[in-house]
Amino acid sequence: MRGWEKNVRRPAPYVPGEQPKEKNIIKLNTNENPYPPAPGVREALRTMDPADFRKYPDPAAGLLVEAIAADRGFSPEEVFVGVGSDDVLAMAFLTFFNSSKPILFPDITYSFYDVWAELFHIPYECQPLDPDFRIRKEDYRKENGGIVFPNPNAPTGLLLPLEEVEEIIRENQDCVVIVDEAYIDFGGRSAAELIPRYENLLVVQTFSKSRSMAGMRIGYALGNRELIRCLNDVKYSFNSYTMNEAALRLGKAAVEDRAYFRDTCEKIISTREKAKRRLTELGFDFPDSMANFLFARHRTCPAETLFQALREAGIYVRYFKKPRISDYLRITVGTEEEMERLFAFLESYLSADSEREEKR
Amino acid sequence: MRGWEKNVRRPAPYVPGEQPKEKNIIKLNTNENPYPPAPGVREALRTMDPADFRKYPDPAAGLLVEAIAADRGFSPEEVFVGVGSDDVLAMAFLTFFNSSKPILFPDITYSFYDVWAELFHIPYECQPLDPDFRIRKEDYRKENGGIVFPNPNAPTGLLLPLEEVEEIIRENQDCVVIVDEAYIDFGGRSAAELIPRYENLLVVQTFSKSRSMAGMRIGYALGNRELIRCLNDVKYSFNSYTMNEAALRLGKAAVEDRAYFRDTCEKIISTREKAKRRLTELGFDFPDSMANFLFARHRTCPAETLFQALREAGIYVRYFKKPRISDYLRITVGTEEEMERLFAFLESYLSADSEREEKR
Repeated sequence: MRGWEKNVRRPAPYVPGEQPKEKNIIKLNTNENPYPPAPGVREALRTMDPADFRKYPDPAAGLLVEAIAADRGFSPEEVFVGVGSDDVLAMAFLTFFNSSKPILFPDITYSFYDVWAELFHIPYECQPLDPDFRIRKEDYRKENGGIVFPNPNAPTGLLLPLEEVEEIIRENQDCVVIVDEAYIDFGGRSAAELIPRYENLLVVQTFSKSRSMAGMRIGYALGNRELIRCLNDVKYSFNSYTMNEAALRLGKAAVEDRAYFRDTCEKIISTREKAKRRLTELGFDFPDSMANFLFARHRTCPAETLFQALREAGIYVRYFKKPRISDYLRITVGTEEEMERLFAFLESYLSADSEREEKR
Repeated sequence: MRGWEKNVRRPAPYVPGEQPKEKNIIKLNTNENPYPPAPGVREALRTMDPADFRKYPDPAAGLLVEAIAADRGFSPEEVFVGVGSDDVLAMAFLTFFNSSKPILFPDITYSFYDVWAELFHIPYECQPLDPDFRIRKEDYRKENGGIVFPNPNAPTGLLLPLEEVEEIIRENQDCVVIVDEAYIDFGGRSAAELIPRYENLLVVQTFSKSRSMAGMRIGYALGNRELIRCLNDVKYSFNSYTMNEAALRLGKAAVEDRAYFRDTCEKIISTREKAKRRLTELGFDFPDSMANFLFARHRTCPAETLFQALREAGIYVRYFKKPRISDYLRITVGTEEEMERLFAFLESYLSADSEREEKR
């Protein structure tokens, strides 16, 4: 080992979801929106003047913060923005989770929670989902230094009813509860309406899914002014300029077209519900997802086998080789056409597969 | 105090440099480039398709990494990119500074080094500049867990000759030495040429100054493959997608126009050298800056008084009310016209000021 290497941080290796460069791939592996951003984004792009790029962006991200506040019916002082919800969540962990008591989150959940906890030396304790992959609100009644969970949860897609979310928040007013709503726009009811009643509630959302802007890296948090002020203080203290000029302007344009947003979400919900029926016919079962993906396992064909077969056919889905979920595939809801191609492949592959089974 | 507040991180308050919204301000306070980005950036902006934004960007930032590698004569495996050099530096602190021995940096220097050290629980020890604000290479000969310094230093603008930079790197091969070259393109010689000889050397640069792209938040590091691999491992482990699609494409366009880059740097250097002569005539002295700013104090007029008077005249410069440097103003080198307006104001203000003095 070379001298300098002894002081190097060695994280557990992580490989981000594939972004294949070939065309003609059906990409159902990273929960992206299959539709383009709102038409206003194109217009905002066309009117941007590159001469403005020479200056630092507004560190308060005013343009974007105000657009989000107006859309969500909050004041700008109740909105914090970051480089994707990953940046917002990491900043919230750093700002609010400084207790010696463990923070709580589900055992099967978004894979970055334990990473950030370890990064910032935050003790944590995972709460197991029930056998049907449900969050049990009772598990969040113990002493803790903070709580975070996605709603709908990932990668299950299951939605915790707002009453149960509220119960968790109400029973933990001595700590900050973060509700990570990356997928809430596909059929859930946001906890944002509870913000006026609970000052310990931070709701985190993203432009990556329902707003078709994964490529622009925009996430945000809603919470009472005091929480948001704390987040901004921490952010300013060590990296003042995170949102680039393009993200500010294009994000504003994306959020301003409410009709397009609603239509896109409705299309995805409708495709998802159709997909549930088709997958059932094809021999899959799955939790009743309220997100833009399905978490499905097949009655007979192993998930890893299916994952490989789909990949060879140019259809990318996600497979997690992890305890409790290794029988499942996470399939993003694409366009109607993409889903039809998926079903056609599955139908032919699975019938050939069951013939192979019978011959054995 | 409310319950949840006891676990909140409370950083020292920090106010980022002002970004005034009024027009007609002469903005010499944040070391931005007074010229627009390369013409190719406009073209890249015009040909971007917003439909691409629905997908996550390439987490490896391939487009941009390859363009920087080609420009600098390195291989893509020797280049790491981040959201401004602040992000790159913070990631480098986190990756390489994990010793129980203190890291070393100058006492008067970039103001985020101690912030990141505290954030990541890294012990540190500041080495005082000499009375002429010079870094003394002898101070970096003691036991340490890593070294970081800007070259040219900020806010002094002083350049450490490459031989002395090399001596610091050579004598510390058991730790990583970060040379933060945000301002190197305005007359300095980069330590990048030493990378093939020293595997403990990381050179950090930015698009915010010499490339006129502060608004796009692009920074990068050059170093041997092993160092860059470590940086990427840490980055991927907790935030895979940091560079948005616009930064990747526009950054590539900015780096590809070498002639424009050279011309812009030469114009700024020429304006700076003229400014040195004019400021001397006006009664200022200053370290001999090799950056795109001057760090100047006036023979008689206090810096804070001048700062306020300039501000009222719509000319923004930077004033740091800190030990050892409270007599100085940091003045960014603007266009020739902006500098003429600065000198005209100073000439009239200072002559009125000395009349006021004489009457007393």
